[in-house]
Amino acid sequence: MSSSAYVHGYSAREAERLRDQAGSLAHLLHCDTRYPAGARVLECGCGTGAQTALLAAASPCAHFLSADVSAASLEQARARVEAAGCRNVSFGMADVFHLPFRGASFDHVFVCFLLEHLADPQRALRRLRRVLRPGGSITVIEGDHGSWYCHPQTAEASRTVQCLIDIQARLGGDSLIGRRLYPLLTAAGFDNVQVTPRMVYVDSSRPDLVESFSKNTFIAMVEGVRDQALTLGLMDEAAWDKGIADMYRATEADGTFCYCFFKAVARA
Amino acid sequence: MSSSAYVHGYSAREAERLRDQAGSLAHLLHCDTRYPAGARVLECGCGTGAQTALLAAASPCAHFLSADVSAASLEQARARVEAAGCRNVSFGMADVFHLPFRGASFDHVFVCFLLEHLADPQRALRRLRRVLRPGGSITVIEGDHGSWYCHPQTAEASRTVQCLIDIQARLGGDSLIGRRLYPLLTAAGFDNVQVTPRMVYVDSSRPDLVESFSKNTFIAMVEGVRDQALTLGLMDEAAWDKGIADMYRATEADGTFCYCFFKAVARA
Repeated sequence: MSSSAYVHGYSAREAERLRDQAGSLAHLLHCDTRYPAGARVLECGCGTGAQTALLAAASPCAHFLSADVSAASLEQARARVEAAGCRNVSFGMADVFHLPFRGASFDHVFVCFLLEHLADPQRALRRLRRVLRPGGSITVIEGDHGSWYCHPQTAEASRTVQCLIDIQARLGGDSLIGRRLYPLLTAAGFDNVQVTPRMVYVDSSRPDLVESFSKNTFIAMVEGVRDQALTLGLMDEAAWDKGIADMYRATEADGTFCYCFFKAVARA
Repeated sequence: MSSSAYVHGYSAREAERLRDQAGSLAHLLHCDTRYPAGARVLECGCGTGAQTALLAAASPCAHFLSADVSAASLEQARARVEAAGCRNVSFGMADVFHLPFRGASFDHVFVCFLLEHLADPQRALRRLRRVLRPGGSITVIEGDHGSWYCHPQTAEASRTVQCLIDIQARLGGDSLIGRRLYPLLTAAGFDNVQVTPRMVYVDSSRPDLVESFSKNTFIAMVEGVRDQALTLGLMDEAAWDKGIADMYRATEADGTFCYCFFKAVARA
């Protein structure tokens, strides 16, 4: 390897790594989230820390407080962040509706895949706005299961995804919340709301995304509600199994797969 | 206006113009299409020249031959391109299935909103590949009506869009073709097929897009098949009118509107 090739990062392995990174889901969602040195950031609903390590590594001089309602999840998040070598994250148990912080305690709030589970996301956003200093930012990332489609598409595949949407609605959530971020943040009193779609398009030229997103994220999530869908009688077993098989069919060489996340940034 | 403000293009009016341009549909679809000096480019299916003037202005030293099956459309295209002051476009009548060109006559082929109307888009792509020199590029842009959704969404609004899809299918076309560009180009023998989604997301922070895209492009297109939909009995009049009203509802201050185009670039 020549030194100029090294300097420009153009070794074959490095080029592949940069391409994988640039095309990864984490890059798509988080590439433009950077917090300045000393910033106090609340990550609300950190779960098991899937985003926490990425966030903290991207803003190594900001201070994160990552909160969740589940002690078990927090324990996993702590282990994951320690394994990643991040030292700028504290953890605490907190419910978004009963935040144990004084007003204006944070410069920034970050929320990812939380609002979709809440019966009253607008009230949650009002609570989060209260703990932000005036002019502080909120960043919200959510999916939208109604944005999914594929090729070839079948009625049964669409119905399996609809089962996921219906079951989340029965649990009090809204898996179509991505498209609602603008009105939700506006109604919660935030200013300068800017929403950008983050669309995942997958074809067989990207085998990494076929595996990591189409199969192991999206289809796996749909398969996760099989028992509930059948028990509730939303679909019969034969139709369900065909729908799942049809989704896998769309991950083959001539198939394509589409899904859209939405990212909003707004000011308190 | 200070000279430094002038140099940097930061007058208020200039900033607004640059922002509108950057956020426009034309920018979303065409910003990365530039042909080098002397390149011979075939635009197949130019219609009334909606894209032709943009293409020709962006690559002023390339030579375009813009072709269509309709003499009336070509006349409009010629007038539009002349009005735009472009001098690097010739026009000719041609059917994609009977192209009057020798093999390898062009360095590049450009096709926008053509394949969706064809019963055999793969055969059309094979014909286009034949007139490209080896290593020449093809650029294909198509929409996908199945990618549409909005907030608030209703069953009737979805059904009006489905009418548009069904009517195009009865005419032998496929308005869900955007998601199929990768397999179509691959099967037609093209190499290095790279497809990128070009998603239009509209909320009321972009009143220009609410007017130009949501209302005057998409809803107007759906409204255009009203008589056919009612005559064919695909919907009754009351449901249709509610569906259209619901789509307009999604263009209000708290509504959102989503649609995805797909752009493919490949090599002969």
